[in-house]
Amino acid sequence: MQIDVVLTVDELRQDQIINHTVIIIDVLRASSTIVTALHKGFSMVYPVETIGQALSLFDSDTILAGERHCKNIHDFHYNNSPTQLLQSEPNQKKLILTTTNGTRAIQKAHRGAGILIGCFLNATACIQEALSRPLDITLFCAGSRHKYAHEDGLAAGLLIHHAKSLVPNMRICDLGITLENSYQQCAHSLHEQLRNSTTGKRLLSLNYDEDVSFCS
Amino acid sequence: MQIDVVLTVDELRQDQIINHTVIIIDVLRASSTIVTALHKGFSMVYPVETIGQALSLFDSDTILAGERHCKNIHDFHYNNSPTQLLQSEPNQKKLILTTTNGTRAIQKAHRGAGILIGCFLNATACIQEALSRPLDITLFCAGSRHKYAHEDGLAAGLLIHHAKSLVPNMRICDLGITLENSYQQCAHSLHEQLRNSTTGKRLLSLNYDEDVSFCS
Repeated sequence: MQIDVVLTVDELRQDQIINHTVIIIDVLRASSTIVTALHKGFSMVYPVETIGQALSLFDSDTILAGERHCKNIHDFHYNNSPTQLLQSEPNQKKLILTTTNGTRAIQKAHRGAGILIGCFLNATACIQEALSRPLDITLFCAGSRHKYAHEDGLAAGLLIHHAKSLVPNMRICDLGITLENSYQQCAHSLHEQLRNSTTGKRLLSLNYDEDVSFCS
Repeated sequence: MQIDVVLTVDELRQDQIINHTVIIIDVLRASSTIVTALHKGFSMVYPVETIGQALSLFDSDTILAGERHCKNIHDFHYNNSPTQLLQSEPNQKKLILTTTNGTRAIQKAHRGAGILIGCFLNATACIQEALSRPLDITLFCAGSRHKYAHEDGLAAGLLIHHAKSLVPNMRICDLGITLENSYQQCAHSLHEQLRNSTTGKRLLSLNYDEDVSFCS
């Protein structure tokens, strides 16, 4: 069994997806929002690429959440914010989510043999589920604005770290080795690392401090 | 001043080179070979992309070195091997070098405002020279067979680590932060890391153990 890593949406190749279990990682914040929404009691999450797609799915059983470049979308109920969703009323509605990078990554990975959503909040469960399937794994970091995002790499490193402890002879690509090293170096300062990442700084400047803390 | 990172030859964009000081990093082994050749007393190194280019430059003042996929090139004096060059007779000849990845990276970066060669052997001098120039810096990892190489990332991480200690307010891209973390995690096990990298394993299988040790 092998784990490969892709660092941005743009560089994904289809051979890294087909016959692979794909874990989409967008720590700040799509992955964390999806995991939190399901934990909170939403019955389902629809990740969609465009605002138009989101609005076309909207009805009385749904809630709209999302952002463009971290900012609110007009008429949407929530930002792409896990801490906002945690404050929502418990219900069994469906969540429609559109984000700048994360939902685009999910769309792009649709030919994967299985798609999982990974972040710090669900790392253990996520890698255990991936390892239970008899396929190689691709960790697909969404990144931000066509660039690699440090926080996604840290979460990928944690997933690899867990995977190696569960399956010691797991084959890891060189990028994965680097990301695991980076995670190990930062394991005790994740909160600080996320605050100092490019996306983290942008979210802090827009007063999403709580999200950055929650996601780390 | 900013440091950006490129992880493979294929993903280099021209805007990351033009008006930048570019440091080419191919630890195993082109960067290490070039640095060693100059240290040994070769008067100049010509990095060329093809075997044909190398042969067309050959004359009595030159020595031919290189490899294809780590293996010897017929009629060449040396492999792309720093330890072989260390055993050569002292002379002031010119070295013509063609390798699978490193010299291709150098060719691809030719529009850079300045090109330096970086590896573990010359890390301190290399980053000091780059910092003395009033330009942003791109660390251009050559990688291997179109993929990122762990050993190049470690050397990039070391260069960043030095740069930050010399210029504390240096801006570092997210990839650079990850590579510095990885270097810090591995600083005391570089030899082992290089032996376990994909390129390192290939070199060990071809009996280039001495090169792997020397380059780390």
